[in-house]
Amino acid sequence: MIISSEAWVDRQLAMKKNIYMGGELVGRDHPLIVPGRNVIAMTYDMAQDEKYKGIITTQSHIDGSEINRWCNLHQSVEDLLAKQKSTRCGIHNCGFCMQRCMGNDGLNALYVVTKELDEKYGTDYHDRAKAFAAYFQRNDITSALAQTDVKGDRSKRPGAQDDPDQYVRVVKKTKEGIIVRGAKVHITMGPYADEIIVLPTRVMTEAEKDYAVAFAVQADTEGVYLINRASAPRARKKFEAPMNNYGSSDAVTIFDDVLVPWERVFMCGEYQEAGRLALLFANYHRHAYCGCKPGVTDVIMGFTQLVARYSGIEKAQHIRQETADLIAVAELVYAAGIASSVQATRSSSGVMIPNPIYSNVGRRLAGENIYHEHNILVAVAGGLPATLPFEEDFISEKTAPFLEKYLKRKKGVSSQDIHRCFRSISDLTCSAWGGVWQIAGVHGGGSPIMETIAILSNYNIDQKVDIAKFLAGIKQNDKMEDELFYGEKSDLKMFKDHLKIFNSSQSVSQ
Amino acid sequence: MIISSEAWVDRQLAMKKNIYMGGELVGRDHPLIVPGRNVIAMTYDMAQDEKYKGIITTQSHIDGSEINRWCNLHQSVEDLLAKQKSTRCGIHNCGFCMQRCMGNDGLNALYVVTKELDEKYGTDYHDRAKAFAAYFQRNDITSALAQTDVKGDRSKRPGAQDDPDQYVRVVKKTKEGIIVRGAKVHITMGPYADEIIVLPTRVMTEAEKDYAVAFAVQADTEGVYLINRASAPRARKKFEAPMNNYGSSDAVTIFDDVLVPWERVFMCGEYQEAGRLALLFANYHRHAYCGCKPGVTDVIMGFTQLVARYSGIEKAQHIRQETADLIAVAELVYAAGIASSVQATRSSSGVMIPNPIYSNVGRRLAGENIYHEHNILVAVAGGLPATLPFEEDFISEKTAPFLEKYLKRKKGVSSQDIHRCFRSISDLTCSAWGGVWQIAGVHGGGSPIMETIAILSNYNIDQKVDIAKFLAGIKQNDKMEDELFYGEKSDLKMFKDHLKIFNSSQSVSQ
Amino acid sequence: MIISSEAWVDRQLAMKKNIYMGGELVGRDHPLIVPGRNVIAMTYDMAQDEKYKGIITTQSHIDGSEINRWCNLHQSVEDLLAKQKSTRCGIHNCGFCMQRCMGNDGLNALYVVTKELDEKYGTDYHDRAKAFAAYFQRNDITSALAQTDVKGDRSKRPGAQDDPDQYVRVVKKTKEGIIVRGAKVHITMGPYADEIIVLPTRVMTEAEKDYAVAFAVQADTEGVYLINRASAPRARKKFEAPMNNYGSSDAVTIFDDVLVPWERVFMCGEYQEAGRLALLFANYHRHAYCGCKPGVTDVIMGFTQLVARYSGIEKAQHIRQETADLIAVAELVYAAGIASSVQATRSSSGVMIPNPIYSNVGRRLAGENIYHEHNILVAVAGGLPATLPFEEDFISEKTAPFLEKYLKRKKGVSSQDIHRCFRSISDLTCSAWGGVWQIAGVHGGGSPIMETIAILSNYNIDQKVDIAKFLAGIKQNDKMEDELFYGEKSDLKMFKDHLKIFNSSQSVSQ
Amino acid sequence: MIISSEAWVDRQLAMKKNIYMGGELVGRDHPLIVPGRNVIAMTYDMAQDEKYKGIITTQSHIDGSEINRWCNLHQSVEDLLAKQKSTRCGIHNCGFCMQRCMGNDGLNALYVVTKELDEKYGTDYHDRAKAFAAYFQRNDITSALAQTDVKGDRSKRPGAQDDPDQYVRVVKKTKEGIIVRGAKVHITMGPYADEIIVLPTRVMTEAEKDYAVAFAVQADTEGVYLINRASAPRARKKFEAPMNNYGSSDAVTIFDDVLVPWERVFMCGEYQEAGRLALLFANYHRHAYCGCKPGVTDVIMGFTQLVARYSGIEKAQHIRQETADLIAVAELVYAAGIASSVQATRSSSGVMIPNPIYSNVGRRLAGENIYHEHNILVAVAGGLPATLPFEEDFISEKTAPFLEKYLKRKKGVSSQDIHRCFRSISDLTCSAWGGVWQIAGVHGGGSPIMETIAILSNYNIDQKVDIAKFLAGIKQNDKMEDELFYGEKSDLKMFKDHLKIFNSSQSVSQ
Repeated sequence: MIISSEAWVDRQLAMKKNIYMGGELVGRDHPLIVPGRNVIAMTYDMAQDEKYKGIITTQSHIDGSEINRWCNLHQSVEDLLAKQKSTRCGIHNCGFCMQRCMGNDGLNALYVVTKELDEKYGTDYHDRAKAFAAYFQRNDITSALAQTDVKGDRSKRPGAQDDPDQYVRVVKKTKEGIIVRGAKVHITMGPYADEIIVLPTRVMTEAEKDYAVAFAVQADTEGVYLINRASAPRARKKFEAPMNNYGSSDAVTIFDDVLVPWERVFMCGEYQEAGRLALLFANYHRHAYCGCKPGVTDVIMGFTQLVARYSGIEKAQHIRQETADLIAVAELVYAAGIASSVQATRSSSGVMIPNPIYSNVGRRLAGENIYHEHNILVAVAGGLPATLPFEEDFISEKTAPFLEKYLKRKKGVSSQDIHRCFRSISDLTCSAWGGVWQIAGVHGGGSPIMETIAILSNYNIDQKVDIAKFLAGIKQNDKMEDELFYGEKSDLKMFKDHLKIFNSSQSVSQ
Repeated sequence: MIISSEAWVDRQLAMKKNIYMGGELVGRDHPLIVPGRNVIAMTYDMAQDEKYKGIITTQSHIDGSEINRWCNLHQSVEDLLAKQKSTRCGIHNCGFCMQRCMGNDGLNALYVVTKELDEKYGTDYHDRAKAFAAYFQRNDITSALAQTDVKGDRSKRPGAQDDPDQYVRVVKKTKEGIIVRGAKVHITMGPYADEIIVLPTRVMTEAEKDYAVAFAVQADTEGVYLINRASAPRARKKFEAPMNNYGSSDAVTIFDDVLVPWERVFMCGEYQEAGRLALLFANYHRHAYCGCKPGVTDVIMGFTQLVARYSGIEKAQHIRQETADLIAVAELVYAAGIASSVQATRSSSGVMIPNPIYSNVGRRLAGENIYHEHNILVAVAGGLPATLPFEEDFISEKTAPFLEKYLKRKKGVSSQDIHRCFRSISDLTCSAWGGVWQIAGVHGGGSPIMETIAILSNYNIDQKVDIAKFLAGIKQNDKMEDELFYGEKSDLKMFKDHLKIFNSSQSVSQ
Repeated sequence: MIISSEAWVDRQLAMKKNIYMGGELVGRDHPLIVPGRNVIAMTYDMAQDEKYKGIITTQSHIDGSEINRWCNLHQSVEDLLAKQKSTRCGIHNCGFCMQRCMGNDGLNALYVVTKELDEKYGTDYHDRAKAFAAYFQRNDITSALAQTDVKGDRSKRPGAQDDPDQYVRVVKKTKEGIIVRGAKVHITMGPYADEIIVLPTRVMTEAEKDYAVAFAVQADTEGVYLINRASAPRARKKFEAPMNNYGSSDAVTIFDDVLVPWERVFMCGEYQEAGRLALLFANYHRHAYCGCKPGVTDVIMGFTQLVARYSGIEKAQHIRQETADLIAVAELVYAAGIASSVQATRSSSGVMIPNPIYSNVGRRLAGENIYHEHNILVAVAGGLPATLPFEEDFISEKTAPFLEKYLKRKKGVSSQDIHRCFRSISDLTCSAWGGVWQIAGVHGGGSPIMETIAILSNYNIDQKVDIAKFLAGIKQNDKMEDELFYGEKSDLKMFKDHLKIFNSSQSVSQ
Repeated sequence: MIISSEAWVDRQLAMKKNIYMGGELVGRDHPLIVPGRNVIAMTYDMAQDEKYKGIITTQSHIDGSEINRWCNLHQSVEDLLAKQKSTRCGIHNCGFCMQRCMGNDGLNALYVVTKELDEKYGTDYHDRAKAFAAYFQRNDITSALAQTDVKGDRSKRPGAQDDPDQYVRVVKKTKEGIIVRGAKVHITMGPYADEIIVLPTRVMTEAEKDYAVAFAVQADTEGVYLINRASAPRARKKFEAPMNNYGSSDAVTIFDDVLVPWERVFMCGEYQEAGRLALLFANYHRHAYCGCKPGVTDVIMGFTQLVARYSGIEKAQHIRQETADLIAVAELVYAAGIASSVQATRSSSGVMIPNPIYSNVGRRLAGENIYHEHNILVAVAGGLPATLPFEEDFISEKTAPFLEKYLKRKKGVSSQDIHRCFRSISDLTCSAWGGVWQIAGVHGGGSPIMETIAILSNYNIDQKVDIAKFLAGIKQNDKMEDELFYGEKSDLKMFKDHLKIFNSSQSVSQ
């Protein structure tokens, strides 16, 4: 089912107060929270919009109803491709992170891993996950995703911390459910989510089985506290701009002995699979980045080109070179997402898993380039985003005429449009909010060093060594040589299987 | 039809002598030419090899017979994906450029553009192209591709040169055909090709219609002279290695008033389409690079990892980082090829055209990184590739024992394997042949600056400007805003069309 | 003379109100202006501090009295080296741009060029400059420097703008002085300067002689309006930090028919030398950057290393690599300044001119790296600078205990120190003020593209071409070959002359 | 004393045969060795040339006679600056590494460390070093420097290898001297050196005291075998070029139980100082690189600009940008050398030691950029360096007219000059010899990763942490705060001391 943004906001406003910000307990209607909430409301509006039909919406594989794509469990390569596109479109409409992907990534990861847990341990997690997914789709749920623990001393494992609560853990099991304690950081959209899905942050050992826990709670559950930092472009007095309606929140999320009922527990003690779940979520989220980050670059590219045109320098060779650099980052990351989608595999749960090499090389390239992209925008825009007088001076009778006289560029472009252009660039490059998006560009979904690890642990580097040995005339194990060519071949076979998936998926998704 | 490598070599040896090298007229059996010829022979052998069935081979859409993929006219997205794979496999077997893609890229470009010419001008070029394609497939032809003119003074157009022959041109038309004059440079595999396909190198004006000419000639046609430079890894005395059997040739190709019969003329005066043909070939060839260059990186990566393992340093963090850098280049370029394939469009001739944005961002990334990749290999290998004693000193009774004693690394790896490893790396990084492949990595298929131009001329940058204006609250032309969202939507539609293509193509290719 | 910071602030407070900010006319005691003013006050305090004797202070070459180094006219290589050091020390104390260098750079440029004007045109500008310099030193003046015009349509020259006021110009000459009109942008510290020195922004033609104007006015002169944007790290409630006492202001500076008395006019119509003056100031300022930017990098490096140590990851190889990258940027830029100082030349006025190749390659490297440096700091610090709860939540009874419990890193480091560390990094990387310093890092003193131009116009590239021709056996003009070796030799001679300068300067500066 | 190149070559030819190459025992007149020998002969010729007086020559501080600068023991900052210049000039004359610096760097390192050893251990090494230095200067000696051991298994220390000879060691001490065994690799100019200075390659432990050995032997000493690899640009048949007269040799140097007389032993068992000696030599050699590498870049830059001018594209913005990149690398590295020289310290032996931070950041930048520089040259030159026909084809009657007709660029430049230009670029970028200089650019004098280590171990990073703590309001150890400012101050003091050194050194060196 898809619901209206109004219905969703009403649901938000009915929630209990458990957000702390600036030293106070605040409601979900706090002015600093509204801009972030507007982003999620936008995702509900887009689903109502005819032009996004089939992009933002799809059909539930559970009950066949129309659902928001960010509630979907990916059934096909096409679903993965459409998810990339939906994310990119979302960013085009709000200017930066559209946030809602996280809960979807967590839902898919839970769906896959609960099935695997059941197969391995004879548990019944997957039924819970299916029920949760049905509830999720039926109610058009928005969920935050809480993964990163506070971690304490980074040189010690979770189980070796002085304070055992530095990673979220089960402190007690009761008939009703489990009691969890700990804190998760960087929880984007926590203050305007319906639910919070909680996943382990890393591989765990047997001694750390209390940390191998995954669950979902309503965001206003007793004992959950959201200590929030909100960000948004500077509010406008007169020169309103769509981008400035939006913002974000990131909350330190405290679990102060929270009771989670059993039907919401999706892993509890199966430490052997904690890493699998952690990394599978990361893989979904990095695939999401391969749709998201190109959208972010589109925005940077759009403003770079706009200010270049206003200044009449868009044909200068260095501007052209830098524009091509931006296009290359956007489209290489997007291409990595396409390759990751096209080479996806189907999990035992039926849900598709994007190819992790491609999702990771894509996310890594994005993370390596975000500061460079800001540098390009700033290099083309010049110093004005840093020294632009405050908005009131463009309104005041005394100063506005001076600024209108002197804030000129190419003939035919009004001083007001130039002003708007630079003010938005100033928001992007020279504000706390702009800083948040630089940092998120590096760390969101895992920083480049995390992708390096993921790439190396997934890549068949032995095959490349075999190629080198073959070419150099170094004798090698015959078995490996066979694998080399088998590998080559099976890869294409895998693709042909995908063709069948494409085919079969059409009946579902069209 | 697919023929044996022996049959092909016999055909080569039957050709007339028209190759000049080192000041002499030489035959196609010259020892410096054989290594390059071996690469092409390998492409015939691969087609006979069961394990490459469906990768190196496919079915002709003309007569349904089994053909070498490098004779194929791409009928489907899958064909394009398989072409990428076939090229990467070829490089795994010879260590660098497998060369035969060029003729195929030219053939496809001719097939598409002749159809367009006929539609526009009522000519009959496409029938000629079809006949040529049928001959090509029936005889398992290997063709060189001659595009780059010598160009004279680069600040002047073709028609403004002091010497009108600085670009290949039609000097006369006769009943039998056209007489052409000029020279093309960097003609890889000219000396061991059956045919040479000749294309214009750039956009032409009406005054330059004599330069708007495309044709194919047998490589030993009267008046064609190949002034050749051959390259190969240093020949081995004792420590033979498969890679060292292979090499390449690049010929300055002179057309000294060559008669081309009309049935081999595919463009003659249609200057408006000269640029279309030039760029379409480039697009096919850049798509080819998205399969080729990952193979080259695989080889570099394989040797980097091999020497790191032999030295026992493969787990050092900087080696891991650099290995991930190499993987990222390989797979981002390959992903760009996949995206270019998946987002291909079908031309009026029925032949698929890869998406030019993705083929160009892929090729560009490859070209920007080749020197960096060599740098990584060298940084990991240390100085020995530059200072390794000559091979004879590893054979001589006096010096071999010293070198065996002192050329050691990790326990369990023989001095001989270490020697082989470094000798091959020395061939790759410290030989004239290695230099050729650095330079080809930059310029082959068009240097990064050419891809920058292609990207900018194909990309919908206006859409990005519209996004910026929308976000900044700058009023814009309503029509453009509509296009923005229409564009978004149609893109997915295009993909759905591809799904049908996938589907329909299966009956052809399986 | 050196005066106390209190005396200087009193002088500031006595000035007339001509600053507009946020739509209002404000005084020099406005809370948003005070942080920037504090930076300049700091430069007065440092001069009083025994430990900076000889670094921040020196002796006037005019009257032998002790002066602040930022009032000095550089008499020796040692003066230039000490200026680099003084700037780096200043930044260590306030955390970023210490601002006062600009006026000094302008003063030196005026001193040199007025002498050259007099020699060429028989004018008496240099006497005015000398009188101004004496006043400057006697009163321990702080001056802003106004160079960048608003420029209007960038594709048109100053004289071809629709509105002739897009570059500051002389609109009238009277007996008392000149009347000037126009606006300068990015005028750092305008709102807390005693004086504003105004220079042309570029080369001018004869038709543009009204734009070839240089002068100095008191910052509160009739007709001067400062439309200001102020920046500072976020004010602290409890966790006070020295860096947060400081800030900056950048003003759009309007000259609304301002009368400049003749004794304050230093160029008026000598269009041939407008470029000389513009570029000479740029050269002084880029030399200043070679002391300043290493200080900025020191701060980034210090926080990078601090947060790495707090997290216990400072020995990780990638952290070490990135730390070395930061050191390399800092010290290469500083080394460029040293080389620029050591290879300075003495102008006809006696004032030393830093070598422009070295000042420009140094500034260029700095400008190319500032975003990369922020990226390193952020990569090491993780996401917390973007998601750190507001300061009040670290004070509030309800939330502070949670944050103290969960904001832990290495044993032995208090939660409070960790909090302080991240809060300061958040100020640096995730605030409007942090954005200002990224942008200033690119554009302040001229962006990398301006240094590229300056390098190419000053470098003896012909000598390198001659070396290539010589090595390739290409015959060259004998005269050029002679120059090659003469050039080589004279360079060392120049250095030997510097030794004498070192020597002779000791009596002055010690 | 300075001797003629003829006298030196005669001395070479009188040496015993101990060079193995290509499986044979060869003399010092072998045609593959001559090109390298010519480089050293050039250094003797330059010393005779009036125009290099005071650059290539200086006065001995031992006997006051005129000596070649590459025999000098640096007495002053000026000496260090002149050494940089001399190296850059040398490269301008031969096109690449002028090789003779190594022996000089080793001599200076021995001179300093022997003095320190005597002070610490009461030994008499310094007298031996002084006698050796006097002999060195008196006979205008050319010495190779052998440092890099073969190292065996890199994961094990010298003393833990299966074969104890993987690092050069003392196997026996006799009355006459020590017997040494082992092998050193990458020994440039071994086959045309008078002497070989041997130094330890790293820090040693007490158990490894037999490896803590330094000595000098004549290059043809009994038991020394040079297994050589020689490199040179391709020999020319007709189009001779000065660069092609030069080349280099790198020898695996075997010490097969060689007797070294005591007066030639400079360290024997003082394991505590093995690292000091190893790193001090590295420091001298990296300072040398700060003169050398700019010369190499000058050559690359010269050819880049030459081919751009011949093609008429030198004003294209990307060519200008890339030219500025080359200038920046050359001059930043040179500036690092200047700063390293200016901030040198005087050792207890009186010999100056360049500042290691600056020598290392300079060498590191050079090593990071060499492949990028080749990339620039190749990007500007296009593909022709890889596909240029062999020289004979430019001579042959049949093909030369074609090549002359078609190898044209800008009007006014002869086909022959274009040919020469591309042939030399082909030698630089597309030959085994070019590969040697790429690899040497990375590894010669220590690869960037070695400089990273040296920088981190020498840099006062604690001071930067203190600055961060101060700015963030984190309480710090008072002592450290004092040091911070003391450090700042003493640094300038050090510079002032240098001024005195400049002064006092003039009497010695002029």
